[in-house]
Amino acid sequence: KLRALSGVSEPPRGLVQEKMTENAVFSQNKVLTIDTMNPNVKNVEYAVRGPIVQRAVQIEKELREGVKKPFTEVIKANIGDAHAMGQQPITFFRQVLALCSYPELLKDNMFPEDAKSRARRILQACGGSSLGAYSASQGIDCVRQDVARYIERRDGGVPCDPDNVYLTSGASDGIVTMLKLLVCGEGASKTGVMISIPQYPLYSAALAELGAVQVNYYLNEEKCWSMDLSELERSLAEARKHCNPKVYQDNVYAEGCQFHSFKKVLFELGPQYSNTVELVSFHSTSKCYMGECGFRGGYMEVINMDPEVKAQLIKLVSVRLCPAVPGQALMDLVVNSPQPGEPSYTTFMKERTTTLSLLAEKAKLTEEILNTVPGITCNPVQGAMYSFPNISLPQKAIKEAKALGQAPDMFYCMKMLEETGICLVPGSGFGQKDGTYHFRMTILPPTDKLKLLLAKVKEFHQKFTRQYS
Amino acid sequence: KLRALSGVSEPPRGLVQEKMTENAVFSQNKVLTIDTMNPNVKNVEYAVRGPIVQRAVQIEKELREGVKKPFTEVIKANIGDAHAMGQQPITFFRQVLALCSYPELLKDNMFPEDAKSRARRILQACGGSSLGAYSASQGIDCVRQDVARYIERRDGGVPCDPDNVYLTSGASDGIVTMLKLLVCGEGASKTGVMISIPQYPLYSAALAELGAVQVNYYLNEEKCWSMDLSELERSLAEARKHCNPKVYQDNVYAEGCQFHSFKKVLFELGPQYSNTVELVSFHSTSKCYMGECGFRGGYMEVINMDPEVKAQLIKLVSVRLCPAVPGQALMDLVVNSPQPGEPSYTTFMKERTTTLSLLAEKAKLTEEILNTVPGITCNPVQGAMYSFPNISLPQKAIKEAKALGQAPDMFYCMKMLEETGICLVPGSGFGQKDGTYHFRMTILPPTDKLKLLLAKVKEFHQKFTRQYS
Repeated sequence: KLRALSGVSEPPRGLVQEKMTENAVFSQNKVLTIDTMNPNVKNVEYAVRGPIVQRAVQIEKELREGVKKPFTEVIKANIGDAHAMGQQPITFFRQVLALCSYPELLKDNMFPEDAKSRARRILQACGGSSLGAYSASQGIDCVRQDVARYIERRDGGVPCDPDNVYLTSGASDGIVTMLKLLVCGEGASKTGVMISIPQYPLYSAALAELGAVQVNYYLNEEKCWSMDLSELERSLAEARKHCNPKVYQDNVYAEGCQFHSFKKVLFELGPQYSNTVELVSFHSTSKCYMGECGFRGGYMEVINMDPEVKAQLIKLVSVRLCPAVPGQALMDLVVNSPQPGEPSYTTFMKERTTTLSLLAEKAKLTEEILNTVPGITCNPVQGAMYSFPNISLPQKAIKEAKALGQAPDMFYCMKMLEETGICLVPGSGFGQKDGTYHFRMTILPPTDKLKLLLAKVKEFHQKFTRQYS
Repeated sequence: KLRALSGVSEPPRGLVQEKMTENAVFSQNKVLTIDTMNPNVKNVEYAVRGPIVQRAVQIEKELREGVKKPFTEVIKANIGDAHAMGQQPITFFRQVLALCSYPELLKDNMFPEDAKSRARRILQACGGSSLGAYSASQGIDCVRQDVARYIERRDGGVPCDPDNVYLTSGASDGIVTMLKLLVCGEGASKTGVMISIPQYPLYSAALAELGAVQVNYYLNEEKCWSMDLSELERSLAEARKHCNPKVYQDNVYAEGCQFHSFKKVLFELGPQYSNTVELVSFHSTSKCYMGECGFRGGYMEVINMDPEVKAQLIKLVSVRLCPAVPGQALMDLVVNSPQPGEPSYTTFMKERTTTLSLLAEKAKLTEEILNTVPGITCNPVQGAMYSFPNISLPQKAIKEAKALGQAPDMFYCMKMLEETGICLVPGSGFGQKDGTYHFRMTILPPTDKLKLLLAKVKEFHQKFTRQYS
């Protein structure tokens, strides 16, 4: 039976026409139901914004409405949302964005000259000198050139062609675009994509949506989440039995002084690698010292891609017209930040250093306090802003969780949220070895709040362990 | 053979390891080739940024490099990119965006009080009072409330629940999300989506990417592109033979005083419609008097959706985290613009009126001049900012185009671009009745340039007709 997604349709014949509630009488007649919708979408899971977070939002509302709880606020450590946790934006970036948004400010004396000249340069590269014009689908030319130079500096001079750079809406957008290109086939020849476990749920969600096969290889928790070649080979051999595997390895979140790009390593291995291995890497404005998630700025660099496929990629990104231009401008500022001698340099460096040392301090704090709790083991947080501690759960708790149809670490995290107001994400949303349990938390809350959070986690874990022993 | 999308793989064994060019020796070994990539992506076509536009960009580069052409600039009338065509942004919107970007400006006296209080309200609704924080995946609460009130005013009081409002990255993003939910099945039960022809190429592109069946129904050009019910029924009956059709009707681009929303009409028809018909409507910051395409702001309102499907929709939008926050802020300003008595009201209304009357004037101009050309017939441009004139092409031209494997109107538009520098889009990219030919042009260029453009189109069409007669 045809029903309309829009106003153009015949009336639902023969149905009671009295006053009726929306979902009672008619729901069986809807065009779009859980049974008729895209089954791939149903298979999507996304833990970082899943049931725990939805409940956390509800609890916040209950607190506002005066409901009594054993705590007075929800502390969210579920998502890498730096500014929401009080991290301050970089002054120079925001000055340039304000100037670009309202160019009348260029006449004002309150802004440093380097911020003004940067804003002028970005505006000149925009259609009609306005952030409100579409950019090229691949991104603004001069921003892509700046990204290319940034990548060259990062890799000690390894060349980067701006034509290989695509600006994206955050890193997620680029990742999904690349996965879209990769997926094809049915049954045993269906594309399988190898991802490390624990993974970021974006990958599993995007693969489910695209109907591809997720192929897991496990990182070695005992060796600080490093990768074993033998595990990669095991996973690959296993996958070949039921799909057509392709490797995906995420290098977005590696940060800090020990960072070596895959691209640089390829070039060091010589031309038989650097001229052939197809590599895509992603970066965004969302993490690190800038933490500007809300602007959805990002880029990807694509090397050794087949030129015919590249033409298809360009077409694919064209359909979405362009990434939001303020995010492109911000990405430009990140890859082309103030230089020594420029008026904004001192403030920029001070802000950057303060944020990064605070993060390093909080990483250490998290590891140290969690490791004092019997039953919690936490690897050093070597970069990025997350920890993924291992938790021992009593058999009785595991049994009770299973009786409720919940993953045991979901049961644990939900209980923690209800009792302490702390919002973490269960490890099962990221993947983990069978029989092990984890939670993921960000290290982003302000130091005082992070200490409180860690103390509460400690207290909760001890209580939970006693309760189910 | 497994090759790597990333750095993690074995070397390509047995291959020549001397110096080699990127795509010569190894391309047959790439993981991702035109034969192994997602076939749905290959089927995507996107005329608005297709070959004509790519050639236009090339010609612009050639002109900059001093190549002699029969013209000195490319005039782009291919895409509704108002600011690129010189339309000025609304002062109030940009003031608020600058204040939100760099809240230090709130201390300054140069901004009107209403702009400041608006900025404070938006920032208060952002995590950490920063545009740099993620918002809820569905969009910022207070923005969705403002959108709901705007829709209620639009529809003369028909209620709108903010929970039914989803903020999106432009309208395109919302449309693709909805299509994703709709698509399922294989073979004869595969989802077919009915779209009006001419259509906006986003729909055909998104349907191709999702592997759904595009079901065309033709608008009646003789009756100013109106819809015939009999044509809808013909198309539906035809489609049922090979797929499972669902209706999609775009109401994004309807504008102006005669606008009646589908939702309002449903409510006027009574509860048997308004409580049951599933309807989604889209709006964005990109068109109309604001023309802020680059910010990618938008929303959709979803009514009568099955609650289970709605839960799936929320999950799906969560995977992309959130629409860019500056775009959400801008959407808020559009649905909640300055009111009488507020300091910015007079300037706002003046700017808005100027832009809209200019557009009306250019719409009239376009229709009038094109209709003076023998072989061109142009319907009145009743709203939005595009015209889709019908062009008669000589048999000889059609033959020559076919010999080149080109759609005849692509041949025509490409020739016009090469000879005059004018960039239009062939009607074939939007769909048209077999044997009819059209081009699409925007009415956005500044009046002087639009006159020049229309004069050149006229001259070209006459010359082309003579040449191929």
